[in-house]
Amino acid sequence: MAWGLDKMSQSARTKLTESNSAPTGVSATNSVPTDLTETNSVPQSTGVLVGALARHRTRLVPIEWGGKVLPIGGQSPVLVQSMTNTDTADAVATAIQVKELALAGSEIVRITVNTPEAAKEVAAIREHLDRMGISVPLVGDFHYNGHKLLTQFPECAQALSKYRINPGNMGGGKRRDDNFAQMIEVACRHNKPVRIGVNWGSLDHELLARMMDDNSKLASPLGAQAVMRDALVVSAISNAQRAEELGLSPNAIILSCKVSHVQDLIAVYRDLAARCDYPLHLGLTAAGMGSKGIVASTAALSVLLQEGIGDTIRISLTPEPGGERTREVVVAQEILQTMRLRACTPMVIACPGCGRNSSSVFQESADRIQTYLREQMPVWKNQYPGVESMNVAVMGCVVNGPGESRHADLGISLPGTGEVPAAPVFVDGQRTVTLKGDHIAEEFQTIVQEYVSRRYGTRAI
Amino acid sequence: MAWGLDKMSQSARTKLTESNSAPTGVSATNSVPTDLTETNSVPQSTGVLVGALARHRTRLVPIEWGGKVLPIGGQSPVLVQSMTNTDTADAVATAIQVKELALAGSEIVRITVNTPEAAKEVAAIREHLDRMGISVPLVGDFHYNGHKLLTQFPECAQALSKYRINPGNMGGGKRRDDNFAQMIEVACRHNKPVRIGVNWGSLDHELLARMMDDNSKLASPLGAQAVMRDALVVSAISNAQRAEELGLSPNAIILSCKVSHVQDLIAVYRDLAARCDYPLHLGLTAAGMGSKGIVASTAALSVLLQEGIGDTIRISLTPEPGGERTREVVVAQEILQTMRLRACTPMVIACPGCGRNSSSVFQESADRIQTYLREQMPVWKNQYPGVESMNVAVMGCVVNGPGESRHADLGISLPGTGEVPAAPVFVDGQRTVTLKGDHIAEEFQTIVQEYVSRRYGTRAI
Repeated sequence: MAWGLDKMSQSARTKLTESNSAPTGVSATNSVPTDLTETNSVPQSTGVLVGALARHRTRLVPIEWGGKVLPIGGQSPVLVQSMTNTDTADAVATAIQVKELALAGSEIVRITVNTPEAAKEVAAIREHLDRMGISVPLVGDFHYNGHKLLTQFPECAQALSKYRINPGNMGGGKRRDDNFAQMIEVACRHNKPVRIGVNWGSLDHELLARMMDDNSKLASPLGAQAVMRDALVVSAISNAQRAEELGLSPNAIILSCKVSHVQDLIAVYRDLAARCDYPLHLGLTAAGMGSKGIVASTAALSVLLQEGIGDTIRISLTPEPGGERTREVVVAQEILQTMRLRACTPMVIACPGCGRNSSSVFQESADRIQTYLREQMPVWKNQYPGVESMNVAVMGCVVNGPGESRHADLGISLPGTGEVPAAPVFVDGQRTVTLKGDHIAEEFQTIVQEYVSRRYGTRAI
Repeated sequence: MAWGLDKMSQSARTKLTESNSAPTGVSATNSVPTDLTETNSVPQSTGVLVGALARHRTRLVPIEWGGKVLPIGGQSPVLVQSMTNTDTADAVATAIQVKELALAGSEIVRITVNTPEAAKEVAAIREHLDRMGISVPLVGDFHYNGHKLLTQFPECAQALSKYRINPGNMGGGKRRDDNFAQMIEVACRHNKPVRIGVNWGSLDHELLARMMDDNSKLASPLGAQAVMRDALVVSAISNAQRAEELGLSPNAIILSCKVSHVQDLIAVYRDLAARCDYPLHLGLTAAGMGSKGIVASTAALSVLLQEGIGDTIRISLTPEPGGERTREVVVAQEILQTMRLRACTPMVIACPGCGRNSSSVFQESADRIQTYLREQMPVWKNQYPGVESMNVAVMGCVVNGPGESRHADLGISLPGTGEVPAAPVFVDGQRTVTLKGDHIAEEFQTIVQEYVSRRYGTRAI
């Protein structure tokens, strides 16, 4: 069982040690050629793999709404999810935020369904979206009272495309089992998939206590943290088994086990992937605010995605006061796109600037181009299919400017301090015009628009 | 040679496929228990490794200044670097920015040395820093004319603690070899280490052309992108060999091979780590602006750091107009800390909020606590050793609030909409006081200060 990541890691560790004890590279005593043309003396390329490992194979779970189907899992693209933070009982505000998230690129949107007032409005939210032409499936997030709300409000149960069930907060003992069964019955009746979403902030206390007890009786008990990680995985898988036993199709179950620390998340999901074939919803819970939330989420998810683990992702960023909720969608897209798993929106490569270019013109130009590209996407994505994979370079001086610009689809190399005040433009690796004067950014924007129209316009539908 | 990452990947790929063809997890036809206490039916834990793989072993390169020594490589901590964007010829402005970067946590700061005017001021910048008590080594970034500047300005050569040499822009043919030799001679004379910093934006054209030619003659030639990646590695290693031959100690050489795409960077550094034992300086060049720059840098570096590759990191973010240069330092620290490789500053875990808490109070509280913690660090780090590893949770409702708060050193679970307006505080996993009213954030801040003083104060020097 399992694809033995543990063994892989151990093996890599051993190989690492071996390579260190043996002379692996260049040592001072080696005779080396003075002529650098003799590159044969350099240790040969190891031919390392480029790109993520093959996707961990999972079942395919269809998410349906309004006659449309979006598959999660299997070999289908890793999907971007997000969640609203409006009061669900306020149907208009919630529909507007769902629209914003969908337009930003969220392919699934989750809303909390926490009260009867919220449950009553879910169908209305769905209708608002349909009227606005926003084709995105809605997921209901349930805690404590999901069994009641889904039973008492069948229109809510029907309007949602998926239910998130947290097995850690459905009460204890028999009450827990009954409540869980009641939710699964609703899912079966309405033919809806569920996500069994475990979170270490609300892990089933009874299960954890039992596993801690069992562990303490072992000859070599594991540490508490390891038992906790195991309990998360066991909670998810055992509840999925129970859901199947209650009649839910295995192709209607998605799992998640969220924790808030990067290394724990990596360990838990490697384990989860090794122990089941349900599609996995990845996310670092409570990642936090500002760059810390982005960094922690990206660090955890990139390691897992690189190993082929993860079928849909959600980035749990705390918005800064006044910040936009759509940021979590942008970050999710950026993770998938920079890792070459998806193409969502044209990406800008820009150097950090240094003492060779201390003017603000460079930063402003890069900012303007990046904003322009993202703003165009709602129009471009229908008009110019393929534009989402375009790379644009905005560089600040002659050191790497022309080179980086050549590697991009379109590039501009702005002049550094003391350089001739002229900005050569590169198109498909070839140097073309040179821009001068006070309107370089606007002129480059025009070149971008013309390029997009010429290169991607012919494929327009 | 090498620790066989390629083989590891292939092996993992095979295992992945195997695990998929065999029934690995739960299937609908399995008989599963209804009682979740029987957790034995769930596939057993695979005991996955937690944490990064053992560090790829590298030589130890000492960076020296003013009687101090900072080691790069070996098993020493992964260091944070940054680079100024002031005009180096403006010694005061540059010294001030170096100070800001150092206070933010940059352990090495690089400045461009691009003109005679800049080279003349380097010793003065060093003196300004020493006078201000800013103990950070300076690295000089050289392109095109480094051989001249380092020879003509020996005080500059002496004031710097390391030279960055780009073998891709030193001219061609014999001129290139002479210029390179001249820089290495200065390094030997002043007993300074160098970084041989290759960048695909300024890759040695002659080397690349030669390798492309050689490749085209092979029976099964590689793709152009693969040859380019190989050329980056060959450029770095062959120039390091040449530097050794010219008399530089192998313990005075650091390598980097920067590219601007995540998967290329991962492939290049895996290859570099497999082919030499020089310390590696990691960084995604021209990562870009805003969250894209943070995401791309974190994605690339986290995959490599998780494999034990990387001895020092620099995050090349383009500052947003008016943005702070220190952000690249903060992001570098956040990568190392969230991956548990270093502890730099207390981290805040905060949930993203949802329809259960649509007030702005929660976001403002999380923001205030995070800002407060970072602002205290310059004082705390001397007064309260160990405080940098503290975790603080600021949570928005009852679903995961108490649980996540218990897992942190200090936590507060703010009330969601409709919950009793009270915020229980958790200290070392135990629930303590419950805060109420309009001053919860201030009162929690006082609790944080008291906790820090009590827990970390006794170890103060």
